[in-house]
Amino acid sequence: MLKIALAQINLLVGGINANKTKIIETAEHARDHKGSDVIVFPELSVTGYPPEDLLLRPDFIKQANQAVVEIAQAVHGIDIILGYPEQFDNDLYNSAAVLRNGQILTHYRKNALPNFGVFDEQRYFKSANQTCLFAAKGHSIAITICEDIWQKGLVEKNKQAGADLIVTLNASPFHAGKIHQREEIVCQQAKNVDIPLVYVNAVGGQDELIFDGASFVVNAQGEVVFRAKEFDEQVSVVEFENNKPVKNTCAPLYNEISSEYKALVLGVRDYVHKNGFQGALLGLSGGIDSALVLAIAVDALGADQVEAVLMPSKYTQDMSNEDAILEAEALAVKHHTIAIEPAVTAFTGMLSEVFAGTKKDTTEENIQARCRGVLLMAMSNKQGKLLLTTGNKSEMSVGYATLYGDMAGGFAPIKDVPKLLAYQLAEYRNSVSQVIPQRVITRPPSAELAPDQIDEDSLPPYSILDPILEMYVEQDKSAEEIHAAGYQLEDINRAISLVDRNEYKRRQAPPGIRITPRAFGRDRRYPITSGYRGSYSKSST
Amino acid sequence: MLKIALAQINLLVGGINANKTKIIETAEHARDHKGSDVIVFPELSVTGYPPEDLLLRPDFIKQANQAVVEIAQAVHGIDIILGYPEQFDNDLYNSAAVLRNGQILTHYRKNALPNFGVFDEQRYFKSANQTCLFAAKGHSIAITICEDIWQKGLVEKNKQAGADLIVTLNASPFHAGKIHQREEIVCQQAKNVDIPLVYVNAVGGQDELIFDGASFVVNAQGEVVFRAKEFDEQVSVVEFENNKPVKNTCAPLYNEISSEYKALVLGVRDYVHKNGFQGALLGLSGGIDSALVLAIAVDALGADQVEAVLMPSKYTQDMSNEDAILEAEALAVKHHTIAIEPAVTAFTGMLSEVFAGTKKDTTEENIQARCRGVLLMAMSNKQGKLLLTTGNKSEMSVGYATLYGDMAGGFAPIKDVPKLLAYQLAEYRNSVSQVIPQRVITRPPSAELAPDQIDEDSLPPYSILDPILEMYVEQDKSAEEIHAAGYQLEDINRAISLVDRNEYKRRQAPPGIRITPRAFGRDRRYPITSGYRGSYSKSST
Repeated sequence: MLKIALAQINLLVGGINANKTKIIETAEHARDHKGSDVIVFPELSVTGYPPEDLLLRPDFIKQANQAVVEIAQAVHGIDIILGYPEQFDNDLYNSAAVLRNGQILTHYRKNALPNFGVFDEQRYFKSANQTCLFAAKGHSIAITICEDIWQKGLVEKNKQAGADLIVTLNASPFHAGKIHQREEIVCQQAKNVDIPLVYVNAVGGQDELIFDGASFVVNAQGEVVFRAKEFDEQVSVVEFENNKPVKNTCAPLYNEISSEYKALVLGVRDYVHKNGFQGALLGLSGGIDSALVLAIAVDALGADQVEAVLMPSKYTQDMSNEDAILEAEALAVKHHTIAIEPAVTAFTGMLSEVFAGTKKDTTEENIQARCRGVLLMAMSNKQGKLLLTTGNKSEMSVGYATLYGDMAGGFAPIKDVPKLLAYQLAEYRNSVSQVIPQRVITRPPSAELAPDQIDEDSLPPYSILDPILEMYVEQDKSAEEIHAAGYQLEDINRAISLVDRNEYKRRQAPPGIRITPRAFGRDRRYPITSGYRGSYSKSST
Repeated sequence: MLKIALAQINLLVGGINANKTKIIETAEHARDHKGSDVIVFPELSVTGYPPEDLLLRPDFIKQANQAVVEIAQAVHGIDIILGYPEQFDNDLYNSAAVLRNGQILTHYRKNALPNFGVFDEQRYFKSANQTCLFAAKGHSIAITICEDIWQKGLVEKNKQAGADLIVTLNASPFHAGKIHQREEIVCQQAKNVDIPLVYVNAVGGQDELIFDGASFVVNAQGEVVFRAKEFDEQVSVVEFENNKPVKNTCAPLYNEISSEYKALVLGVRDYVHKNGFQGALLGLSGGIDSALVLAIAVDALGADQVEAVLMPSKYTQDMSNEDAILEAEALAVKHHTIAIEPAVTAFTGMLSEVFAGTKKDTTEENIQARCRGVLLMAMSNKQGKLLLTTGNKSEMSVGYATLYGDMAGGFAPIKDVPKLLAYQLAEYRNSVSQVIPQRVITRPPSAELAPDQIDEDSLPPYSILDPILEMYVEQDKSAEEIHAAGYQLEDINRAISLVDRNEYKRRQAPPGIRITPRAFGRDRRYPITSGYRGSYSKSST
């Protein structure tokens, strides 16, 4: 019987020493308390994933390669399979090493290097085209790494080379529905070659990315016989008898909404903790976005680590303040109220001379938003708390936000959450326990920067805007294709031209958590200076 | 005799229709007024370079391929060689087409796709491994594209295939000294295969990148026989007689300082004009950085397109205001003075309750900087003028700047200019005509956010800081290597730990002009959440 431990653990990008210690302790525990013969860690476990341009630093690479030797020397009596950036001659490989009794027994170099979406692996690594098998307790185990298993060919090559078990080390980032894609592909691969497969994924938040865990084992028939939890660390052992995995507890797959919510909670928790902040704070307006972010922050950090600030103006309705306070009290969060009028009045006076003879426009609205930004950043600076921004993906798309105003902050939890999804997430959270006042969910959304303002004064209704944005931003559809899907050209052109024109704002936005197949940030790289206009016009036909 | 026109022109990324028109007009002019047989445009001339993720849009690719057909049909009587993203089956190539009398005669697909530094070509394109030759007036002309010519092998393959002339289409971005590297490599390649070479580069600013032009022709002996201007459009004709290029006017190579200055001027001009701003404005403090940026902005846009704003506080020295006004007057720039005290007082009062019992720290300094940010952004919003930020590379490196304060703005002209170079550039500009008061250059630099504050209170002297930063940020040197180069560990660790800790600020900084081999932005991709600490400690040995 062969016992394989799946080490679904949360590692720190760049934190080689901390990761080394954690890998050693995890391996020793799996050996001593779970009788494991082999333990498998995620892709690039020694450095965390993705280390980005740290991989260009010779000192960093040297330290990572040294750590592998030290781990090998530290842990005997269990085979350790871990990932690291392997320096060989003048080339760097995304590699997995098999460590046994003080030695590097063998290593595998990743064949398929993803260089799309959020991935830049060809920037750093050389691809290889060799398989790698090693023997353990009568098994012939092949190693693959992440993208390898999404491609045709390598699994078959491993079968031909004599593998009777395939392990794959992964750092596969989350987006909604990804887990189903992932299991489907892997089950198909296992079934095709009639070999069981052990899939170990990283877990944790890293800037924009969430690694969702949900490691699993598939039998030769392509059936999932074990699944670890989503969004949490878990070291589990799966036994292989007569070359077959023994069925073990399968964690349920969360539904899409609850997975998204949990991804957001993990993202906030890891960003705050891994960056050493003393908790978080945010502006609480009484609107849906900040209401949702407050709930996420409290679920991530605990109520005592979160502070809410109400910053009403003369345009703020009473119900906004009431609902903000209701939620803060429901979540037992410390809250302050600071009216912004004195600062707005000061700026208005200071600018009266240069603005003489001009008309009111969005400038005056932006000043209000920026006064709030100054207040929140002052509190963040003074207390060492991370300022969370509360803008959603619909706003980020069309630029319905103020740079250095409501966009001020270190992290944007719902930056990749479209407005309609924000409502769904709020309702999901309330279904767990009621914390967001119902009126926040039912009232029409408003920025409250002018009298009786609502979002629909400036934007198409979100029920129309959100699907247009999804097609344009996430699916690269043209205006004509969106029109063919049943939307009005006027709405399409309004939305698209706002997306096109607001790249400059997004470039200065804080990072946020990716939960869709294409988020703003590393995932969507657009020029600011651009003559491209996606909106429909006669000349584009 | 063969007459080749080198079309060193300024194209707009994404602006396919505008580029198409410009290419047609340029080709017709070269044919009709200069008797050219062949005209060569830069790499990806139809789309501009780099189009980034626009290349993932099917509608964009379709439009670009259609534009090539339209250009071919529009211009007869001259061979046009231009660059475009060529869709073939399901693959995209970075290609050059030869257009002759209404047809695409042939096309070349780029072999070497750079995927390092600012380049992401493997994200979009498939590489090819074929050569491409075509016949024109008794010559056998081979085509290559940019990175191809920096590699070994392709030039030799073209020689073997029978080429007697090589043309290369480029979008080669500027950094200080790049032009020498470029000419050295190309001359060596030409000499090696004993074939003359025509090198056509793009010119213009595109977000962070400057394409510096300086197109040239090399004879078979590896000598430069023609060179176009740097930083300017120029369409020139070089004649080939008996397979040899006839010597033509060589524009002088600027020296490094003047080239850097001109790159900054072009970068500001193109960012403002291509993005449709009504001029630019900036905060003018009386310090070296804003003094330099003002001079650059005026040289880029003209004095009537630039506005300066003085925003003194109680910590602002008289000489700062005096020198700011002196420069604004010397440059004939409109200037305003708005004291920030009313807003600072308002915020201090508004925060007095939540800050009760706390000590003064950088929070109060940041409030001052952010009040200035609010004022400048209000003026920018009201007038449609681009706000230029004035931070330099040394400050960006160590985070000696306030997010949403002095970092507020749409474009950061000297973001890649280390402090000591800022002084050199100021002196260079004064050598052309005296505009920056000498006292601005000689007084010790200060942020003037606290009484009698100077930069050296918080940072090592720039004569020590700048070389450390260059080694750490641009050359990936370790603390130990920098120590070995003669710097004190205390200074090194102070500088490095500030660089490591301030990635979050840089991520929200506006784009700026790249003039060094590694700028912050697309060029240096670091994680914010990171356990890596480059500073020297016992545990790192």
